[in-house]
Amino acid sequence: MQFRNKNFLFGLFLSFAVVMTAGAQQFSKPEDAIKYRKSAFFVMNAQFSQIGSMVQGKVPYDAKVAADSAAVIEVMSKLPWTAFGEGTDKGETKARSEIWTDGAKFKEAQDRLISESSKLAAASKTGKLEDLKVVFSATAGACKNCHENFRAK
Amino acid sequence: MQFRNKNFLFGLFLSFAVVMTAGAQQFSKPEDAIKYRKSAFFVMNAQFSQIGSMVQGKVPYDAKVAADSAAVIEVMSKLPWTAFGEGTDKGETKARSEIWTDGAKFKEAQDRLISESSKLAAASKTGKLEDLKVVFSATAGACKNCHENFRAK
Repeated sequence: MQFRNKNFLFGLFLSFAVVMTAGAQQFSKPEDAIKYRKSAFFVMNAQFSQIGSMVQGKVPYDAKVAADSAAVIEVMSKLPWTAFGEGTDKGETKARSEIWTDGAKFKEAQDRLISESSKLAAASKTGKLEDLKVVFSATAGACKNCHENFRAK
Repeated sequence: MQFRNKNFLFGLFLSFAVVMTAGAQQFSKPEDAIKYRKSAFFVMNAQFSQIGSMVQGKVPYDAKVAADSAAVIEVMSKLPWTAFGEGTDKGETKARSEIWTDGAKFKEAQDRLISESSKLAAASKTGKLEDLKVVFSATAGACKNCHENFRAK
């Protein structure tokens, strides 16, 4: 078989963290799921902060950098949610129990972030800082909404 | 000013980790940079593992899931490299000193991963598992190349 070479085996060796079944991402250990969602949030926040620095006037507005960041945010906004599965409410996490007891509200909060992030990516492409400011604020509101309702202080 | 509302201020509050200057991402603390690049690698590996499970036949091939994962990998492959700045060679990291002493070779390793990830994304769109297998192997080779040369055991 053509793919049975060293690189392929290395690829499998890397595959410790995730087992995929029928289109839904699953993690072999709850710790991996928690680490995954925190990683996605951390990258998202770092990119969001880049745009924040421009919106705030701390650094000069650079339309390309802003658009690149917003594109990453749009991708990242969709990732963490599969990692809030059963058994991931304990451990190194600030996730509140409401995530699992009020799934509908949590889903709504996810959808809001995904939607705002998509608008942020669109606004970043206009090259106008004023456009970006408005949507940045709305996206920050989506972050805040979820933190206030579903993340422990 | 229209953006001086609570959401906007929250956005700024989030902006602890990153200060952007002239298009280059900078981190206020080396720990943040290290956490950022590790986060990006972790998300990338998790998505890569999803494809690996399909390539290996552990789970049924799902063209959409594979394409979604490959699209994320393509984005993630470009992110970690700005976070290998000065002062980030110490701390919670397996980064080897060669990253800083042989920058040209490290850059080459980055470019190889970015290039292979881009090919993986393209191959994932054909909907043919055989196409994906070949490029998966090549992408794993790019991971391995960098790990062997620049990451401590």
